[in-house]
Amino acid sequence: MRLAELGEFGLIRRLVEDLATRPDVAVAPGDDAAVLTPGPGRQLVATIDAQVEGRHFLRSVASGYDIGYKSLAVNLSDIAAMGAAPAWALVSLLVPSDTPLSLLDDLYRGMNDLAREFDVAIVGGNVSGTDGPLTVDVALLGQVAQARALLRGGATPGDALLVTGSLGAAAAGVLTLQETGERRIEEQLIQDVRRAMLRPRPMVREGERLGSLGMVTAMLDVSDGLVADLGHLCEASHVGAVIVEDAVPIHPAARVIGQAYGRAPLDLALSGGEDYQLLFTVGSEHIHSVQSALAEIGTIAAEIGAITSDTGQLVLQSPDGSRRPLPAHGWDHLRRE
Amino acid sequence: MRLAELGEFGLIRRLVEDLATRPDVAVAPGDDAAVLTPGPGRQLVATIDAQVEGRHFLRSVASGYDIGYKSLAVNLSDIAAMGAAPAWALVSLLVPSDTPLSLLDDLYRGMNDLAREFDVAIVGGNVSGTDGPLTVDVALLGQVAQARALLRGGATPGDALLVTGSLGAAAAGVLTLQETGERRIEEQLIQDVRRAMLRPRPMVREGERLGSLGMVTAMLDVSDGLVADLGHLCEASHVGAVIVEDAVPIHPAARVIGQAYGRAPLDLALSGGEDYQLLFTVGSEHIHSVQSALAEIGTIAAEIGAITSDTGQLVLQSPDGSRRPLPAHGWDHLRRE
Repeated sequence: MRLAELGEFGLIRRLVEDLATRPDVAVAPGDDAAVLTPGPGRQLVATIDAQVEGRHFLRSVASGYDIGYKSLAVNLSDIAAMGAAPAWALVSLLVPSDTPLSLLDDLYRGMNDLAREFDVAIVGGNVSGTDGPLTVDVALLGQVAQARALLRGGATPGDALLVTGSLGAAAAGVLTLQETGERRIEEQLIQDVRRAMLRPRPMVREGERLGSLGMVTAMLDVSDGLVADLGHLCEASHVGAVIVEDAVPIHPAARVIGQAYGRAPLDLALSGGEDYQLLFTVGSEHIHSVQSALAEIGTIAAEIGAITSDTGQLVLQSPDGSRRPLPAHGWDHLRRE
Repeated sequence: MRLAELGEFGLIRRLVEDLATRPDVAVAPGDDAAVLTPGPGRQLVATIDAQVEGRHFLRSVASGYDIGYKSLAVNLSDIAAMGAAPAWALVSLLVPSDTPLSLLDDLYRGMNDLAREFDVAIVGGNVSGTDGPLTVDVALLGQVAQARALLRGGATPGDALLVTGSLGAAAAGVLTLQETGERRIEEQLIQDVRRAMLRPRPMVREGERLGSLGMVTAMLDVSDGLVADLGHLCEASHVGAVIVEDAVPIHPAARVIGQAYGRAPLDLALSGGEDYQLLFTVGSEHIHSVQSALAEIGTIAAEIGAITSDTGQLVLQSPDGSRRPLPAHGWDHLRRE
């Protein structure tokens, strides 16, 4: 069966056959719109993000499963970064006519598997042909207790700066796509960083946990790169920040691969992007409580620096105590310098 | 200023400068996600739809304003078709690098103007580059009283079939893009049908009104064409339907233009598509009440037929009383016959 024989309605029928769902979905795909029952007294959190072939993924590297997984993962990360619980996703597919049906099946499998893991329902969608690249646009809705969403703008000078997990693995994954020559890197390390790049784990449980603690003053997810995203947090909070070089948690495989490719591992961690870890601030008296709460769900959060009153100034403190300014640049999909 | 100089963040800053909003938007664009406060006890209604250059619009015909307007309009129509009130929109733009900034400004102007008219807030979005066509993906959320959403599946035999406004104008607009030769059509008529094609009026107030009446048994919007959409309604309701040929409200300009281009005006009305009128069913005792309620907001709803127990059978009744079957086919974006 080819896509052109199946048609739009046939494809939709095929894709909706086994969608992830939840009990609060009153009307699932098949009508003009989905009907959802929000929890009483909760606020909604809503985001949208696209994965575009040639920009966000290459079919030669990413499988259909990877593409579907990541399309949802990047949105889950945004909802987690609000301290909210994800709930309902809408999916818009732009499909070139030569797309193999098996790729679309795999794409939905990747998306559904991740949705089920985090109790998300896929409640609606749209399919359109395109003469351009395969594109998956996902809009995701979550819920959060009234007035408890964690924003970027609440950090104050003296707050500690923490980040979950480790950084640099996705950027190391991108490095491994370069012509290698003879680099003698362990195959397992290459697999690890490519997986970090292709199937980033969104910090969904960590985001909800941090949201429920009532201690976090500001939070966002690290998608553009640690320094760029810290820049966003500082801009919104009208503060500055210092990062302690030694404290930055560099992914072990990123260390090895960065060195093999002549890139400083610290640089991968600071500006690589696509880590999808959570970067957040708390009053220094809460550092231990927050770290303990995350440890209970198996996640380490490192204290990597502090918020300062030097508005807009990001600095890196070296092991010898010297400080140098960090330029707050990150990945920009449109810009050409 | 060109797009490549402005960059993704610069473009976002520019586009969010003057977004349509509403008081229940707690956190507007600028954070990881928007925060919204739903009305107490209300259900959510959610949909997503894309407008793709070369498939849904041509830049040689549609202005930026038109593209933005229609991107939101088609989603408003889906929310209206649920009997719900629209509230919050998320917008994902896929932008080729040579897109003029003025076109994107106009696109947002068209979207914001329509959003303000129907009290919709644009609460979030995403911008990505693409090597393919300009694409606008809009996800739209609305609200409806608990268990009052109007679905496709509630029609029963004996129900009357009604449609708002008139049909065929958008399809006539598409006709006028063909090579014309010398057809001597009044310029005003051409303008009328092109406007219907480029800036379809979503029946937002009509949808809400019909939702609040508690009389409508099934409803959807006419996007694929009257017969195709009636087919969807009948399939979901496990019923059949008869359309009375004489009763179908053909747009006056579609009559003239259809004839000039050798297309039966009735055919434009039955299968043209993109009308974005509301097609709905009510018990025959409610026809007058429903028509009166719509007349109060300036909209005519024509009784065009009835629901039958001949599951899946759609028939057209001619003025002489004879009946012939209607094939339930409509526009399919992917299919090649």
